[in-house]
Amino acid sequence: MINRLMEKIQKTGAPIVVGLDPMLKFVPEQIQKKAFSEYGETLEGAAEAVWQYNKGIVDAIWDLVPAVKPQIAMYEQFGVPGVAVFKRTVDYCREKGLVVIGDVKRGDIGSTSEAYAVGHLGRVQVGERSYSGFGEDFATVNPYLGSDGIRPFLKVCQEEKKGIFVLVKTSNPSSGEFQDRLVDGKPLYEIVGEKVAAWGGECMGEQYSYVGAVVGATYPEQGKLLRKKMPRTLILVPGYGAQGGKGADLVHFFNEDGLGAIINSSRGIIAAYQQEQYAKYGAQNYADASRAAVLAMKEDIAKALAAR
Amino acid sequence: MINRLMEKIQKTGAPIVVGLDPMLKFVPEQIQKKAFSEYGETLEGAAEAVWQYNKGIVDAIWDLVPAVKPQIAMYEQFGVPGVAVFKRTVDYCREKGLVVIGDVKRGDIGSTSEAYAVGHLGRVQVGERSYSGFGEDFATVNPYLGSDGIRPFLKVCQEEKKGIFVLVKTSNPSSGEFQDRLVDGKPLYEIVGEKVAAWGGECMGEQYSYVGAVVGATYPEQGKLLRKKMPRTLILVPGYGAQGGKGADLVHFFNEDGLGAIINSSRGIIAAYQQEQYAKYGAQNYADASRAAVLAMKEDIAKALAAR
Repeated sequence: MINRLMEKIQKTGAPIVVGLDPMLKFVPEQIQKKAFSEYGETLEGAAEAVWQYNKGIVDAIWDLVPAVKPQIAMYEQFGVPGVAVFKRTVDYCREKGLVVIGDVKRGDIGSTSEAYAVGHLGRVQVGERSYSGFGEDFATVNPYLGSDGIRPFLKVCQEEKKGIFVLVKTSNPSSGEFQDRLVDGKPLYEIVGEKVAAWGGECMGEQYSYVGAVVGATYPEQGKLLRKKMPRTLILVPGYGAQGGKGADLVHFFNEDGLGAIINSSRGIIAAYQQEQYAKYGAQNYADASRAAVLAMKEDIAKALAAR
Repeated sequence: MINRLMEKIQKTGAPIVVGLDPMLKFVPEQIQKKAFSEYGETLEGAAEAVWQYNKGIVDAIWDLVPAVKPQIAMYEQFGVPGVAVFKRTVDYCREKGLVVIGDVKRGDIGSTSEAYAVGHLGRVQVGERSYSGFGEDFATVNPYLGSDGIRPFLKVCQEEKKGIFVLVKTSNPSSGEFQDRLVDGKPLYEIVGEKVAAWGGECMGEQYSYVGAVVGATYPEQGKLLRKKMPRTLILVPGYGAQGGKGADLVHFFNEDGLGAIINSSRGIIAAYQQEQYAKYGAQNYADASRAAVLAMKEDIAKALAAR
């Protein structure tokens, strides 16, 4: 799957992943009204609204980008009907040929991580048959529990040719509270990054490893250092746009060959019609606004890479 | 909810939480057969088997213990039908008067942690109405992203009188890989523990805080130190039984008043009938074996506390 993702990045010329992180306040009124008229103002109604909204965006952007990243928290907030729409979104995006990164940030002790790995990336045995629970292509994973929380994911990645992105340095303001603490003179994120490179060495694709890393766009200097520490690691970079990351901050996350990073934007794309710049599209044409925002982001990144 | 949990611990005399972490290999054959005959060897069939198995255990132990802790990974492995049974289990346990700790180990950047907090502990707004997505009483939370990943949980805890347990020192063998690394001469888990005590100070119940900590039974020395660092923090202690923790290891996790810790056992209780000691019950009476295992665990802890 990492090879397929790298191919798709090169083919689209867009090292971009669209974060499908729906909040009801992003969903245009006409979609909410229709869903509520059918299902009432219920969790099922909210889930239906989210699904129709997602579908509109995916239909508008699927040919431009290699991948999408649904954030499962945004679906879990609507309980079981929300989780069902997460699954439906994963399936629909895969049908459209998109690589799906489940932003689930799971991580637990060994036997429990195994259940997460099976549920999100692998197949669970039920009697004589086996089933894919959620069936993403990649999942994000939290490293706080150490190697034996990660290994079950590596095992499933090898079996299923799937991948993970391990949290190394997150994009949020207080990420430094623990991640930047110095251990033997080195910040913790660097130690985690070294581990990611080591785990990744055990699961190599053609150029890049099945084991990627998450490093926030809001920390370009740390990105520069981690890029060197993890040369064969694809870096998933959140924090572009709404969180403050800009094209020029991103160049350090890429290798010399222009590969090695994939930049996420969520509300900057999916709620583009709510921004002044794209307001002309209106709520009716929210998906066209998203398409325009992807094209602008692609140009911003290409320019920044050309200028370095 | 922390006050209710503390009351229930005192009333039952059992500082015990039963981990509802079902794996199909634990589910007695007669239950699997019945579920598969109704739903086929499908995810729905597996989920039904898990539900019937859980219900049998809960019916057998609800009067003995204050709380249960379903591990959501074990449900997510069965996809959406599995997650629906997680919710059904939460609801059923709450109806039985049990405090429900959702072992979800969520944690993300601010806005996303907010969605998790709302989905698991709070209420989500849908038009004019609001709904509880999963509705646990407590949730476990991963601290790697720092304060702004935790604060949304604190907000919901204050509004809804619910609680969280933050991972401090986990029970697994490689937990030390990052958690034990020395920062200014102090292990990282101690720094996280200090933060937990500080966050907890902002959300106090009568004796204990809404903000608890997870510290593994497999690390008694660390438990002793953390008990002192976090005097008003309820410690959720996994790793008893199957993972190797014993009654004598547990005494350090309790305060002088005999309170301050709640010990989890999962497969040691829910799959007791598969152990030699309880084999006499047989698969038919698996729930009676679970009840006997709870009583034995209660005695083991009481003895250890009396002997200190």
